[in-house]
Amino acid sequence: MKIGILGTGMVAKTLAGKLDSLEHAVRLGTRDVKATLTRNEPDMAGGPPLRTWLESHPRVLLGTHAEAAAHGEIVINALSGQGTLPGLESAGASNLANKILIDVSNPLDFSKGMPPSLSIVNTDSLGEQIQRQFPAARVVKTLNTVNAFLMVDPRQVAGGDHTMVVCGNDAMAKQEVTRLLKDGFGWRDVIDLGDITNARGSEMWLPLWVRLYGALGTPMFGMKVVR
Amino acid sequence: MKIGILGTGMVAKTLAGKLDSLEHAVRLGTRDVKATLTRNEPDMAGGPPLRTWLESHPRVLLGTHAEAAAHGEIVINALSGQGTLPGLESAGASNLANKILIDVSNPLDFSKGMPPSLSIVNTDSLGEQIQRQFPAARVVKTLNTVNAFLMVDPRQVAGGDHTMVVCGNDAMAKQEVTRLLKDGFGWRDVIDLGDITNARGSEMWLPLWVRLYGALGTPMFGMKVVR
Repeated sequence: MKIGILGTGMVAKTLAGKLDSLEHAVRLGTRDVKATLTRNEPDMAGGPPLRTWLESHPRVLLGTHAEAAAHGEIVINALSGQGTLPGLESAGASNLANKILIDVSNPLDFSKGMPPSLSIVNTDSLGEQIQRQFPAARVVKTLNTVNAFLMVDPRQVAGGDHTMVVCGNDAMAKQEVTRLLKDGFGWRDVIDLGDITNARGSEMWLPLWVRLYGALGTPMFGMKVVR
Repeated sequence: MKIGILGTGMVAKTLAGKLDSLEHAVRLGTRDVKATLTRNEPDMAGGPPLRTWLESHPRVLLGTHAEAAAHGEIVINALSGQGTLPGLESAGASNLANKILIDVSNPLDFSKGMPPSLSIVNTDSLGEQIQRQFPAARVVKTLNTVNAFLMVDPRQVAGGDHTMVVCGNDAMAKQEVTRLLKDGFGWRDVIDLGDITNARGSEMWLPLWVRLYGALGTPMFGMKVVR
């Protein structure tokens, strides 16, 4: 399947690498292709800069946000919370229309110090804002509750015995995404919370997530809904 | 040990019943003793009205908030989010000074419809507000992440294999509360998040909790931090 991924950071590369290994045709999207390819710094997790990463993933293409979105039968938003709406705007509503748009981002606000707060919270969510601004996209919010490495390989902790939540307004879209989560990435327990307003719940997990990260000293943990 | 519990609802009664069974001397606090004793309606979970409940728990005393707080060597806030600060105010700062104050409440706001949002959120929390207003109390936030029945008996799901978080500024207070959680209630995995600002994280779990409740159709579930 053709998949467009908006973003070139750690999350985007991790998703792209996994989807490429699953034989999907991946195109990453960035604001400025030339600027992205001249960057030499490692990413937030100490991973290689994109140019080096692309050399080791020769099938993965790079393009503008619009080119990545146009390429994808499914589009994944792996931009920062702050970069999400501008990035989707430059991807273009017509390139997102009728497509599954998987939103894995979180509206983290680092401007008020650490740990981050949320820039959208409580009575709204980034997932809802995306769905409102792009009503023809079939937005599915998921994967935002874990670190990038666990998104695509939940078995890295406790043999994968933890929970992923999904939400969105389109039942068929959620089914298809759940299949990708299970058959592609190895998630075993996927809970459908309901419509996209439930993104408030999964995004508001982040403030607890960052504090657990602080207490445990590692981002490699999952949340299992025990029942 | 003498324990004062502010509140007479389902959470207060469940905590009182368990602590009474552990041979602690419990006194419940309410705004208006006479009015509380004349109420005949079942509680939110369909449990008996307080008068009936007290008849089956003859060792548990009832009094005003001030009497319950004065009685307790440990005080537990089991009031609603909205009722918490007024209730603690009428309990009296001098009756809380130097005592462990276990806050199990959540600032749920039902005024904007269901599911509830939070009335305090993101850059502040109810736990912090309590600590700021009663600086001499040793506030420990915990148990607010599960239903009342699981608070005192986590083994009701998955043999108790789920996680409780605690936070607060007083390390000794957290240690004593953790001992009560483990030896008294049966919690096996207790994570200390750090100071009371971490109440933001545990209170912001609630929006996800209420949505999981909706999706699962039961409040009898826990959250296990899998690592």
